[in-house]
Order: sequence, then C-alpha cells, then structure tokens
Amino acid sequence: MIVCVGTVGLDTVETPFGRVEETLGGSAAYFVAAAAALDTGTQLVSVVGEDFPSQHRDLLSSRGADLAGLQVLPGRCFRWTGRYHFDMNRRDTLETQLNVLAEFHPRLPESFREAEFLFLANIDPVLQLEVLEQVRRPRVTMLDSMNFWISGARDALTEALSRVDIVLMNEEEVRQYADTPNLLQGAREIMALGPRVLIIKKGEYGAVLLHEGRFFYCPAYPLEEVKDPTGAGDSFAGGFLGYLARQGDLSMAHLRRALVYGSVVASFTVEDFSVARLASVTGDEIQKRYREFREFTFFDEV
Amino acid sequence: MIVCVGTVGLDTVETPFGRVEETLGGSAAYFVAAAAALDTGTQLVSVVGEDFPSQHRDLLSSRGADLAGLQVLPGRCFRWTGRYHFDMNRRDTLETQLNVLAEFHPRLPESFREAEFLFLANIDPVLQLEVLEQVRRPRVTMLDSMNFWISGARDALTEALSRVDIVLMNEEEVRQYADTPNLLQGAREIMALGPRVLIIKKGEYGAVLLHEGRFFYCPAYPLEEVKDPTGAGDSFAGGFLGYLARQGDLSMAHLRRALVYGSVVASFTVEDFSVARLASVTGDEIQKRYREFREFTFFDEV
Repeated sequence: MIVCVGTVGLDTVETPFGRVEETLGGSAAYFVAAAAALDTGTQLVSVVGEDFPSQHRDLLSSRGADLAGLQVLPGRCFRWTGRYHFDMNRRDTLETQLNVLAEFHPRLPESFREAEFLFLANIDPVLQLEVLEQVRRPRVTMLDSMNFWISGARDALTEALSRVDIVLMNEEEVRQYADTPNLLQGAREIMALGPRVLIIKKGEYGAVLLHEGRFFYCPAYPLEEVKDPTGAGDSFAGGFLGYLARQGDLSMAHLRRALVYGSVVASFTVEDFSVARLASVTGDEIQKRYREFREFTFFDEV
Repeated sequence: MIVCVGTVGLDTVETPFGRVEETLGGSAAYFVAAAAALDTGTQLVSVVGEDFPSQHRDLLSSRGADLAGLQVLPGRCFRWTGRYHFDMNRRDTLETQLNVLAEFHPRLPESFREAEFLFLANIDPVLQLEVLEQVRRPRVTMLDSMNFWISGARDALTEALSRVDIVLMNEEEVRQYADTPNLLQGAREIMALGPRVLIIKKGEYGAVLLHEGRFFYCPAYPLEEVKDPTGAGDSFAGGFLGYLARQGDLSMAHLRRALVYGSVVASFTVEDFSVARLASVTGDEIQKRYREFREFTFFDEV
C-alpha cells in the first residue's frame, strides 16, 4: 500500500492519433493506475470539484485506490488542455484551469498516517512538506517535481528534496536545479542534499538510477506508435514504487528491477489515452515486456 | 585486419577545456586508433597532402595501420576547425578546407583487395561505391554516413546502403533519410534496403543495434568531464568492428559485445584531444570499463 499525494483532474488532449475531452487525468490518477498494474494498492490524497464524474471515481476505486483522502471542494475540477506535435516529444499547454486545486491543502486521514510508502507527485513543494509533517514513520518516501517549482519555489523544494529517500527528476530539471550542463555533477549536487536514490528520466531515452555511487540504466521500450505520452512519468513512478512496495527494501537489485517495471508500465500508458491501457493491461503482458527489456539490454561477460 | 577507407587530416579544435591546433584528425585516423585499442590492425585507404607531418604518419603506423593505401597528393592536407559549446553537445564548424580530399579516389593496393572486414567511413557515397567495386569477397562490410550525403547524394547513398552488411547512422540521420519522426519506422525502412545490422547512435544517450528483428541497447559511459567529443562516432565504429573482426561472425551475442566495446572505446576517446587517449589506453582499462557497462545495465530475471 502506498500513500499517493497529487492531482486528479480532467484532461483534454489532442495528439496526431486523436483527441479526448475531459478524460481522467492528473499525476495521482496515473500513479494509482500504474501501481494497480503491479497489484499494489494506494491511499489517494487529492482534490476534485463537485463536477468530478462518478465513473472516474469508480475507475479509481476499481484500481485499488482508497479514496478517503480525496477531498471534494465547492467548485470545478482541475482541468488541463494540451496538444502534442507530430513528433510527440513536444507539447503545447493550451489551457490550465487550477479551479479547486488552488485551494488544495493535503490532509491525510488518520488511517493514512502510518503509511510505509509515500509518493509525493509533482505539486507545490510547500504542500509536499505539509504531507511529510503528517506521516509518522514512512519507510520509503519518493518525490517528483518540475521546472516550475525549481524556479518558483526553490527553497521549499530544496527542503523537500532533503527530506525524502527517492527523487525523480528529468534531465533538464537536474541541470536547471544544479545550474550546470553536466548531468553527473548536477546529480551529485542533488544527492548531496540527502536522497539515497536519484532517478533521472530521459524521456524517449529511458532513465538512469543513482544509488550509493552506482548507476543503472534502463532504455525506454521501443514503441512503433505512441498514442498519447501524457502521464508517462507518473506511471513510471507508479510502476517503480508499486514494485518496491511489494519488496520492502532499497537493495540495488530491487531498485534495478523496479526501474525496469517503471519503464514497462509507462510503455503501456502511452499506447492509449488517459489510463485506458493501464486499466486493461494484464500481469502476463507486464511480465512478457519485462523479459523483453532483459533481451534488449543483456550481454555476456568476456 | 580491417580495411578502413576514410579521411585523415589536421584538426584545430576548441572546447571549454582547451584548444589544439593541426592535431591528427579525420574519421579514418580515429577508426585506426580505436581498432588498435582492441588489438586489431587496419589497412588504411585515405589521402593526405605533402604537408602531412611525419609524426602523424608514425603514430598511425604505431597503431597497427598498414599505410600502403595512403595516397600523398600534391597540395595541402584536409583541414577542419571546430568549436564546441559549453554543453559539449553542440559544435560550430568554423572552417573546412577540403584541399587534397577534393581529388580523392580510393585505390586499394592489391594486398587490400582480399579484405575480410571493410569499414567505409563517412565520405561521399560515390567513393564508398568505388571501394565496394574493388574488394573481392569481404565477409563483413560496414558503412557510416552523414546528413550532408542524405540530402546531397541520396541515390548513391541508397545504393551503398543496399550493398553493405552493417549501417551506422545517428538518429537524426535515420529520421532524415526515411522522412519520418518515428525512429523505429525509419530503421525498418533502412533495413529493408538490405543491411543485416543497423546501429543507431544517440550521442550522450548511447546506441541501439537492430538485427533480425531484435534490439540491443547500450548506454554511453557516464563521464564527469568530456574534454573533446571529436571522433567519438568513428572510434565507436573502430571498437565495434575491431571486436567483431576478432570473432568472425555476426551472431547476436557477438554483436552485443561489439556494441559495448564500441561504447567503451568511444568513452576513452573523448577524455582527451585527438587520438591521445586511444594511443595510451591499456587492455586492462578497456576490460575494466566493459565490466562497468555490465554493472550499469544488468538486472535479474523475475
């Protein structure tokens, strides 16, 4: 079981492969569905408006999410509208309506405070710190962030980075935070703040994990067609922590496998819009793709 | 032994870490030094001017290159001047003087025509085809190219691509040649021309090899400081084919190891200017870094 704090909202997304309107979106929604793909349940802490469709609530429940921490505030849901370019690596945000998210302060129900695993999705680091005050003795805490907070809330983000076990950033964010073009130097600067594990996402190039001076690289799954990249990073986090939560420790062997499971789960996410593919993927499909990742990266000793 | 056809010239290079003038450069020079790092000798086919310094000639000889196919033409050597940006991923070409390279037509000495392994470095594909006419029954032929020939000599390049076993391109070149943003689709289009193996270079993100519908990914070595990226791709080719030439067949197991050796050798190249590091690297250093690549990428079955 993982406590997940993040956004739940309604996404309108256009890609070269189609368009969906007011579909289930938000970092926490993708995380929930991704962890569920590895049979790991979540305790969800988020906020929606009074217009949140009941079928979205049902979908989250069906994916093993405990919704006791899902606040419903007067007003409308958080909404995001985006459009992907032909090459799918760039997107334009056409509109962001914070709505009830502007009023959000995470409150963990008493039953969530004993959480052993905690995921702080990409939200204001001030709110991430509020969550860290509410959990009693988590075994593993993991944090995601973005460029907006690096420039706009650097002090709070630095404090949050220093208080978690696992940090997830993309490579531009590492360079931006540490103000260096050298990714390795940037990584060392962030790890010097305290985290035991740093995962650097590289989009279509996969991800690298750093732990105790060691590296582990995992490529992204080679997909012929990506239908909608939205939520890939949050799904990656859900697959990663979903696997770790079932293992219980941060040994390098478990971290390596977790990174591969994160990549596997994210590769399913982008095959369809919203969490549709995550909701249908089977355990056998996940294991098959895990074995393919081994095939993609294995080579002999000499 | 590998026949290598490419350029030899004088490079003037400026990076944030220093500047060198009229140092040994050119695709064939890097290839020779890289293959030598894996104890594989080369038969060099190239051209220099009358001003080619004797110490550069001696260095090539000391790296196991048979210079019987190195033409000396009246005039000056090919020269290239470039400057790297702070982030080392971008460079400006400040000057290119073709000089004797403009007159070059590769001529293989009789003793080279029985070559079992042939590397066609990045030169005009018309010249690459001239070489393919001169070798009798090579076991493995490998070709490198660049964006300039894709737009400027597409028909000759297509013919050359269809006549070699292994193609080396970077990801932008694959997309440009196949006119698609999807790398996988581009790769399939190129392999449909005939090559058994396609290696797609991704710069700081490593490389991927495609063979018989299978993939193998290898990351780039994580270097804290890159002194001069010039020649990384040609060194990669030299390490790759240098290893394969000692194994003799294109089994997937050999191709995987060869890709790792290519990455290992290229990682040494960029630690210093010109071929200085390649000339000093030891077999033990290479084996140590190979084992590190395994450490970077290994994960268990589940």
